[in-house]
Amino acid sequence: MKKSIIKPSILAGFMELLPDEQEKFNDIVDKIIGVYKNNGCLSIDTPIIEKADVLLAKSGGETEKQVYSFQKGKNNLALRFDLTVPFARYVAQYYNDLIFPFRRYQIGKVYRGEKNQKGRYREFYQCDVDVIGKGKLSINNDAWVISLASKAFKKIGLTNYEFQVSNRKILKGILDELDIDNASDVMILIDKYDKIGEKLFKDELTNIIGNEKSEYLNNLVNIKGTNEKILEELLKLDIKNDYFIEGIKDLGQVKSMLEVLGVAREEFRINLKIIRGLDYYTGTVFETILIGNENYGSICSGGRYDNLAENYTENILPGVGICIGITRLFFVLKEIGFVEKYKIKSNLDYLIIPIGDTIDYCSKIMKCLQEKGYGVTVYFEEDSLKKKMSYANKLDIENVILVGEDEVLKNKVRIKNMKLGNEIEINYEEL
Amino acid sequence: MKKSIIKPSILAGFMELLPDEQEKFNDIVDKIIGVYKNNGCLSIDTPIIEKADVLLAKSGGETEKQVYSFQKGKNNLALRFDLTVPFARYVAQYYNDLIFPFRRYQIGKVYRGEKNQKGRYREFYQCDVDVIGKGKLSINNDAWVISLASKAFKKIGLTNYEFQVSNRKILKGILDELDIDNASDVMILIDKYDKIGEKLFKDELTNIIGNEKSEYLNNLVNIKGTNEKILEELLKLDIKNDYFIEGIKDLGQVKSMLEVLGVAREEFRINLKIIRGLDYYTGTVFETILIGNENYGSICSGGRYDNLAENYTENILPGVGICIGITRLFFVLKEIGFVEKYKIKSNLDYLIIPIGDTIDYCSKIMKCLQEKGYGVTVYFEEDSLKKKMSYANKLDIENVILVGEDEVLKNKVRIKNMKLGNEIEINYEEL
Repeated sequence: MKKSIIKPSILAGFMELLPDEQEKFNDIVDKIIGVYKNNGCLSIDTPIIEKADVLLAKSGGETEKQVYSFQKGKNNLALRFDLTVPFARYVAQYYNDLIFPFRRYQIGKVYRGEKNQKGRYREFYQCDVDVIGKGKLSINNDAWVISLASKAFKKIGLTNYEFQVSNRKILKGILDELDIDNASDVMILIDKYDKIGEKLFKDELTNIIGNEKSEYLNNLVNIKGTNEKILEELLKLDIKNDYFIEGIKDLGQVKSMLEVLGVAREEFRINLKIIRGLDYYTGTVFETILIGNENYGSICSGGRYDNLAENYTENILPGVGICIGITRLFFVLKEIGFVEKYKIKSNLDYLIIPIGDTIDYCSKIMKCLQEKGYGVTVYFEEDSLKKKMSYANKLDIENVILVGEDEVLKNKVRIKNMKLGNEIEINYEEL
Repeated sequence: MKKSIIKPSILAGFMELLPDEQEKFNDIVDKIIGVYKNNGCLSIDTPIIEKADVLLAKSGGETEKQVYSFQKGKNNLALRFDLTVPFARYVAQYYNDLIFPFRRYQIGKVYRGEKNQKGRYREFYQCDVDVIGKGKLSINNDAWVISLASKAFKKIGLTNYEFQVSNRKILKGILDELDIDNASDVMILIDKYDKIGEKLFKDELTNIIGNEKSEYLNNLVNIKGTNEKILEELLKLDIKNDYFIEGIKDLGQVKSMLEVLGVAREEFRINLKIIRGLDYYTGTVFETILIGNENYGSICSGGRYDNLAENYTENILPGVGICIGITRLFFVLKEIGFVEKYKIKSNLDYLIIPIGDTIDYCSKIMKCLQEKGYGVTVYFEEDSLKKKMSYANKLDIENVILVGEDEVLKNKVRIKNMKLGNEIEINYEEL
């Protein structure tokens, strides 16, 4: 009876890479995590599946509609849709065992049932850093987390990015001052500014708050100039609202501290149109665009929350964090040709090819080279030499070691460099 | 209005670690993956959620009953329950883009709705290596994959493990020869041998195949002695069945090749009672026990399958692989006290404490130390010096650098070693 064959395929909206690209993806992840560790962040890992009522404690919000949830036995389960909510739960749960300020990094897959579109995946990796304080947390941390993203991008070799930073308190203060009731509608609208464009924005804003205030607000979020200039112009408004004053002060401090922490002036820009939706954030907010490729959206975002774990504990836990959506980022880096040019060290430096019964000696050579840190494997199949060499070629292995009985007898190692095309013969001891 | 607090907790059967242990977990994973890479394995990553009909193509089997499956829109989805089935699907799907023999490693979470019991998790990491050939695959690969597990365990510093190896063809040949119809019932019974004990095993076996054959088979699977002795005794049976002869030959070859590849004689033992359930495997099978802690079950298992991807392609793809269940392994290593003694390098080598307005200089020192590869962070909070020092102590940070205005003026760096209790002052240039 012939077996029936099922067509091998994956779900739409899920990313899968060939080994070549996967190795590059891993290398990028390793570099980002290397920066996080180098800055003293500790690792945590949380389940992908959680109790639905815990994960969705903060109900409402755009994200929740996209959550993968299901039943198993009597339990209502949900797949995490970000790493921030599980982190909040984690910090509340292990509060007494953690040392604050707690700086943690985490990488993992998250799930959102988004509409399947270019660069939007339903399963994707996030790679987060958050620092969380007990009762209080210095504003300098807001700059610090952004500086980690800057270091990570530099490590990868990315150059054309720009952090766009704001502080929500500024807008909150202004809207308070303008006596606007439906402030959240206005915030949502500003959040959509870049998507809908100035014309539509002004029209819709006028509908909500009238012509005069709309004009004022539109001018305000579009103040041009250096970061210093923008802060100056804002101060000139001379608004006496506490939120506004605190927001300006905090944003100013973040600006200075970014420079202190090695983020160059060209790397960041104050942009009051940055809101980051309506969830969590209460102070600093930022996004990261690729200059010339703004249409791909933000490749790294984050901000400050006054009380991250409020759904899970009475303890006040202010925090600030960044999230790099690696799967999305990798998609964008592929699109702009960055991945193709991205060079990594091969896992396979040497392929050892036994000719005849020389496997003992091959194994000895492999051990020796691996101890020096090289990636080495032996070609075990009984194929023609041509096929074996072609294998090395296809896998882009730089060195092939041919081990015939002659080499074993003479204790020699014959190394063929596939790139240069030359061959050297050395004594085993010289290896 | 007071917010309602939801008790932070995770589902039963899910593992979560505190940062201390998480760092050790990561270190163990890094070492295992380091060995895989050092041996030329390439990385792949597959979705955790797949189409249910694809993932469950090989229907039946114990595992399937435990699968997490659910609907989303019109799609029947399932969470992967191992990394082997997705790998089979992957190889069939990208057949034309892969280079064979394809040696891949993969680490990822898998899901099984197992009964919640000690060391059995519903979400756990597996860390696999498989090598897969086009049409054929040398038996030497069977030894090679086991040698990787051996190298990985040595790298971790684990010593008291033992690979228990068999080849299914041997038993298949014997059962053929004994003219046993319900061979799979007998195989299932042998698989349970260690769980149920010799007495019950013999009773049940007698029920299936009668007293004489039961006696014969029980003696056979319990042949004692060195690996050579066991193979000799088997050969003496002089069974002319092709499976039997091939099984003995293959097992003998795996035995010799293991030694060639640096797996010491003490590390492995032939054990004909190893079956590995009824799925996939067709030749070599192995498990790994911790000597003295056999009750925890196998910490690393695997084997050979003649045709891995038969549900997805007409192409014949023999493979052999190992799977280390890291979550399970880590649980066991905790239980036997290994984790507690397991020492790792801290992510945090230096804590820099600004005293007064010295943040610029602190940042300069941080940059310098990080470039040398040290993990460094700055204490940003405005706390008492005592609290700051206590933070370093609690986090087990070896060095604290106190930066007052005096140090900035004199271009000095004052380093306090928390372990030795001493303090040195050097010029910034000496750093």
